[in-house]
Formats: sequence, C-alpha cells, structure tokens
Amino acid sequence: MATGSSGSKPKARNRLPAVEVLRVGHRPGRDPRLTTHVALAARAFGASRLFLHPPDPELAARIAAVVGRWGGDFEVVPADDWKKVVRSFEGAVVHLTMYGEGLSRVLPRLRRSRRILLVVGGAKVPPELYRLATYNVAVGHQPHSEVAAVAVALERLRGLPGRRAPRGARWQIVPQARGKKIVVAKAAR
Amino acid sequence: MATGSSGSKPKARNRLPAVEVLRVGHRPGRDPRLTTHVALAARAFGASRLFLHPPDPELAARIAAVVGRWGGDFEVVPADDWKKVVRSFEGAVVHLTMYGEGLSRVLPRLRRSRRILLVVGGAKVPPELYRLATYNVAVGHQPHSEVAAVAVALERLRGLPGRRAPRGARWQIVPQARGKKIVVAKAAR
Repeated sequence: MATGSSGSKPKARNRLPAVEVLRVGHRPGRDPRLTTHVALAARAFGASRLFLHPPDPELAARIAAVVGRWGGDFEVVPADDWKKVVRSFEGAVVHLTMYGEGLSRVLPRLRRSRRILLVVGGAKVPPELYRLATYNVAVGHQPHSEVAAVAVALERLRGLPGRRAPRGARWQIVPQARGKKIVVAKAAR
Repeated sequence: MATGSSGSKPKARNRLPAVEVLRVGHRPGRDPRLTTHVALAARAFGASRLFLHPPDPELAARIAAVVGRWGGDFEVVPADDWKKVVRSFEGAVVHLTMYGEGLSRVLPRLRRSRRILLVVGGAKVPPELYRLATYNVAVGHQPHSEVAAVAVALERLRGLPGRRAPRGARWQIVPQARGKKIVVAKAAR
C-alpha cells in the first residue's frame, strides 16, 4: 500500500509521497482512544507508520492486532525522543497546527516531496516543534482534532483509500449498500 | 459559513450541500474527548450542527464556548431519539460505516443533494441505522475513526475550510510560517 521511497529511477510524474506520522505528547495514563484513532486513521489513509511519543506498548500491541487481522505493514514505533525523530527524518517535516499556513497553499510543495512526516501534538505542543518543522500547516484555522488533521492531510496527499485490502489481510470487507459483509480467510498468510 | 438551504431560486451550479451531523451512541460517562473531537471537526469543516444522542449538556456547553470565541453558529442539538432525527430529516441521510459503499463512488450523487445528514455511530451501531439511511458509505474499508470519517466526508463534500474566520469570531488566527498569532477582538460582537 505504501509507495516506495527508495531507488533512483527517473521520477514518476504522479508518484504519491510516502507519509509517516509522529504523535508528540501522548498521555498513556489517560483514555488512549484519541491516540488509537490517530494511529488507525494514519493506517487507513495510507501512512506507513506512527512514531509514538512517549511510547505506549499496550497501544502499540492493539494496533499490531488490527494489522494482523486487516493486513498491511503499518507499525507503531516507540519514540522516547521526539526531537531525534524530527531531526533525523529525511524529507519534509509537516507540523499540523491551526496556527500554520493553510494546507491548500502548501499542498503543491508537499506533493513534490518523496517523504513526509506529519507531526501532531497533544494539548501542549513543545514550542521548538514550530522551529524544527519544515512547514507548519493548518488544516483550517479553527480548533478541531489531531485525528481529523491527520486524516484530511493524508487524504489530500494520497487520495481516498481504495477498495483493495492491504497485503496479508485476513479480514476483508465486501462493500454493501445495506448491512455488513466480511470475508475471513481461514488460514493466516 | 454554512450554505443556505432554503429559497426557491434557480439552482446555482456549484452550490455546496448543507451538512449536519448526527452522533449516535455517545457515552457521556466515558471520556468525552472523542465526541468533542467529532463536534469540533464537524464545525471546522463546515457542518451547521451536531445532533447528539444521547444528549450531553456539559459537552454542548463546551462547544458553545468554542463557538462564542471562534464564531459562526454551529450548535450541538440534544437528540433523545436518534431515529426521529433520521426519519424527519429532509435530505440524504449518509451513514458513515466501513461496511458501506465507497465514498468516491457515492460522492457524485451526494454532491447533488441540497442537505445531507452524516451519521456516525459509536462502538455499537444499531442495526436499523443501516436500513434507515439513504446511503451507507465507507470512507475506506479499514477500521479508523468517526472523527476522521466526518472530517474527510465533509472535506470531500465542501472542500478545505478557507482562511476567513466565521461571522462573530472574537478570536482569529493570522496564519504563520512559524509560531502562533491570534488576534482577539476587544468587544464581543
């Protein structure tokens, strides 16, 4: 599902950027649903991994279980030091914040990147993040949600997810006008 | 910000559908952040109101405070009976579910609607919802988030939010490449 980011072939005109996500300031003690939703949205909209700061092994295990059923190779990577992740990233670091430049304005530049790291903070964002980011980008200048910001940014960068299930999926949905249909593979891959 | 939905003028070619959101199965006892994020994303991406089932006056008050600062006329409407909201809605009822038809497939039909009610459930969705909805629509067929589903569906229906602050905003962001800039109006409107 993820677009390869290595190799030195001539540039494909419509290659989609490979996107990773960094969540800064997760609070493992509190209700983990919001960060779980960030992780699931990142996966569903085509990111290849979520760096999670601070690490939360339980959350990572829950997402790994989702990947086991639904396929693909999305992973949650523990990040003790978020600055290190940002500094060592080889690509555009895009801090999603309502204070930044409008997404539609920055989008043409972002689409030329081969690799993008979307960064979302929690309630308190470390001020250095504004400085360390390549771009500070607003998905609208109104308060909303890091889940929404990640999903919409990914959708604008990579398009709506297609119908095809990721590689290795054991569970697959067959789209229905009414009701639910899941096909479950008998054996694991 | 919301597009008017009344009047009998000849159809404007590019009129955006007016969108409302219904959240079914909110759990006021648990951490309210997810539903708060649904409400904020609905507002930020151009919905005019959120019907909240079951009602949660505290959450409604928090969102009203956001509207007081940031403007517009978004409101949280208590919904004791979600079926009544669905049945009495005059427009297309779009249940967002990973089991439904792909959004890109249904989108051309939705864009012709004047009014749309996006419906998102919680962990357990009442089976009748699949039957009562005009469309069951998947924003991707992978598990993710009702926050992401609402945001991306709205963004596809109405586009990315613009730079202009909603009417009556007391707080306004001035987009910045680095850092934060808010202008606070001295007097309320």
